[in-house]
Amino acid sequence: MKLYSYFRSSAAYRVRIALNLKNIDHELVGVNLLKSEQLGAAYLDKNPQGLLPALETADGVLGQSLAILEYLEESHPNTAPLLFGNAWQKAQIRNLSYAIACDIHPLDNLRVLKYLSNELGVDDEAKNTWYRHWVEVGFEKVEQLLDSNNAFCVGEQPSLADVCLVPQVFNAIRFNVNMAAYPKIAAIYERCNKLDAFIDAAPQNQPDAT
Amino acid sequence: MKLYSYFRSSAAYRVRIALNLKNIDHELVGVNLLKSEQLGAAYLDKNPQGLLPALETADGVLGQSLAILEYLEESHPNTAPLLFGNAWQKAQIRNLSYAIACDIHPLDNLRVLKYLSNELGVDDEAKNTWYRHWVEVGFEKVEQLLDSNNAFCVGEQPSLADVCLVPQVFNAIRFNVNMAAYPKIAAIYERCNKLDAFIDAAPQNQPDAT
Repeated sequence: MKLYSYFRSSAAYRVRIALNLKNIDHELVGVNLLKSEQLGAAYLDKNPQGLLPALETADGVLGQSLAILEYLEESHPNTAPLLFGNAWQKAQIRNLSYAIACDIHPLDNLRVLKYLSNELGVDDEAKNTWYRHWVEVGFEKVEQLLDSNNAFCVGEQPSLADVCLVPQVFNAIRFNVNMAAYPKIAAIYERCNKLDAFIDAAPQNQPDAT
Repeated sequence: MKLYSYFRSSAAYRVRIALNLKNIDHELVGVNLLKSEQLGAAYLDKNPQGLLPALETADGVLGQSLAILEYLEESHPNTAPLLFGNAWQKAQIRNLSYAIACDIHPLDNLRVLKYLSNELGVDDEAKNTWYRHWVEVGFEKVEQLLDSNNAFCVGEQPSLADVCLVPQVFNAIRFNVNMAAYPKIAAIYERCNKLDAFIDAAPQNQPDAT
């Protein structure tokens, strides 16, 4: 498998964590978002969605990080399952995952921040306030949903929810969100970042990191 | 089961379609987004995320429409499956679903449009341009991913992807997006809207429609 990735893309970061957790052999191919390489013909030919990441498999190329994560789970269910328990517990894992992947991340994407600057003339300060606003509104809800008796988002092992949470916290810190306001999230972030799968997937440890 | 719904919420509309397709007995409870009832104590007590929809089940209350849809699929897999085929085909269904639910819908949510007006002073014209921009960028990619030999998004029966697509098209039309630019999407929309499950779930057919 080949993963098309950019070190700071948090959607790519999610998939890097999952590939590591599941011990799936793969090659990383860097696509520079700042240079808009994701909109170049070579990449669009692989993934017409023009977004990162994309996973190249024997069956074809798959975009959308959540679709990739569910696919890895379906095709490799036994090593480090990302969804576990009964239907209701799986629903809790997905609920937390989407609270991040649908309610926070899409609003703070690079393409959205660019639209705010270029099309709406929003200045840097207001843009950073926008960024933090959606993280804070989202983290407040995630914090309420978490149970501090659990080591990870749900239960005692990392799940899809942790795979989504950690890259979002990494970015929140980069944009100076005050993580002290979310002690349960902060504790999970620290705990995950002691595991090799998370450490090896971190932006600063990528071959294309600058 | 009780579904907390608002007739124009496209995330609630998705769940209404799925409940109908799967013939699951349920009660609808109206929560008026325009009156911010989703932020009132009574609703927050049910769903601390303060977003629509939420599904009340014997196990508890679940938010996030995609988590609800996956839960309905896991708990009622045999009637009108929303995910079918092998792992790769399911991945295609989810890829299309998230291309809508993660890349289009979150940017055009009411809370985001309100932020643009109230916090960034964006005027109505620029706000409508924003709305259409994210639909158009997203639909262009979805259109490319669709195969015109299929009756629905993937294969010959409605899937999770159609459940996500139809409410998005409904809203696109409301905001004057030119659907002639997306003939494959438009054909699927028409085909779905001949089925009772989709008709009964449509905003104008809800008890709280105004």
